[in-house]
Amino acid sequence: MLPSHLKELITQFTALPGIGPRQAARFAFHLLRNENDISSLSSALDSVAKSIRLCRNCYIPAYSPNDEKDAICVICSNPNRNKNIVCVVEKETDALNFEKSRYFQGHYYILGGFINPIDETGLSKARVSILLNRVRNRQYKNSVEFILALSPRREGDFTCSYIESKLKESANPEDTIKITRLGRGLSTGSELEYADQETLRNALEGRR
Amino acid sequence: MLPSHLKELITQFTALPGIGPRQAARFAFHLLRNENDISSLSSALDSVAKSIRLCRNCYIPAYSPNDEKDAICVICSNPNRNKNIVCVVEKETDALNFEKSRYFQGHYYILGGFINPIDETGLSKARVSILLNRVRNRQYKNSVEFILALSPRREGDFTCSYIESKLKESANPEDTIKITRLGRGLSTGSELEYADQETLRNALEGRR
Repeated sequence: MLPSHLKELITQFTALPGIGPRQAARFAFHLLRNENDISSLSSALDSVAKSIRLCRNCYIPAYSPNDEKDAICVICSNPNRNKNIVCVVEKETDALNFEKSRYFQGHYYILGGFINPIDETGLSKARVSILLNRVRNRQYKNSVEFILALSPRREGDFTCSYIESKLKESANPEDTIKITRLGRGLSTGSELEYADQETLRNALEGRR
Repeated sequence: MLPSHLKELITQFTALPGIGPRQAARFAFHLLRNENDISSLSSALDSVAKSIRLCRNCYIPAYSPNDEKDAICVICSNPNRNKNIVCVVEKETDALNFEKSRYFQGHYYILGGFINPIDETGLSKARVSILLNRVRNRQYKNSVEFILALSPRREGDFTCSYIESKLKESANPEDTIKITRLGRGLSTGSELEYADQETLRNALEGRR
């Protein structure tokens, strides 16, 4: 019943994370009802495709209308940020959340996902390799601290352990590489009564 | 932290139904990681903007690359479909669902939403007005049946009652206008044990 161009648009929408065919169809019908929306979405996509590249250093999106390869984000290009503290996060929004807290003044490194033990070709694995090469080639001057800031879930913990062991392998003996993980304990606003055993144990161990 | 073009794209995504700022940001980051996706989505939007219009008769999307005003969908242009049975539905996907059942051979009329009693300017109200004008101007030849096929929820029931009373007002005394609603009762595959009281009552009343 639907024209093929519309079916194609619905298929494209299903490629977005978390979107199934039903919601993709709803998007398409919504846009057809609001003709201005369809053209503003299309031109917003074009502007992004033309002018936004991932930072060559940390993979945070950066404004870079000309040089395709040398995109550098506002954080990596800020001389006031500390290059020797690198916060390794799963995804871009994690870095955004750290920025909101205004407490972190170092650099980021976006993995683009967790490490999947059985997938040799994943994006996160490729990005870890790039990071390890930088360590091997001593691109980090002086001492560097990698904060493995991954969500405290099974995949996050596995990814932390994986990166930690690889970083230790790759480091030159004369370099000072510090590897830390985020502190664990009670979240602000949580109630002791409802804290799980693991959280309580972490809160006790991390007391100060 | 994010470039303005990217923020603009995220804003555009939040205009899609059911999408909040977090998921909109995820869409944008996903597209940046997959450069092919961004250009295929953009070109799919362009094709739709250029070649798809809403059918001038029923508002189902139709392939219409040239004539802006005279778009006519595959159902309305099919001479084998019965023009004298019009299935009034809330949204496009409802019509798609009827088409899947292959049981209905009439035309559709997409309201684009339910009637909101306090909103005088809604899309659904405008479309009801157009329908009523057609009835007033006797554009339906012979007798016509309007099947008010709206979801059996409060909004759907209100919309049914609203359209029914307006249709009756608008009909010329010499015209035969039949107004029906979908049968109510037990859904196929449902269990009697878990049927609510309203459904049971409808199933008893609608027994045959």
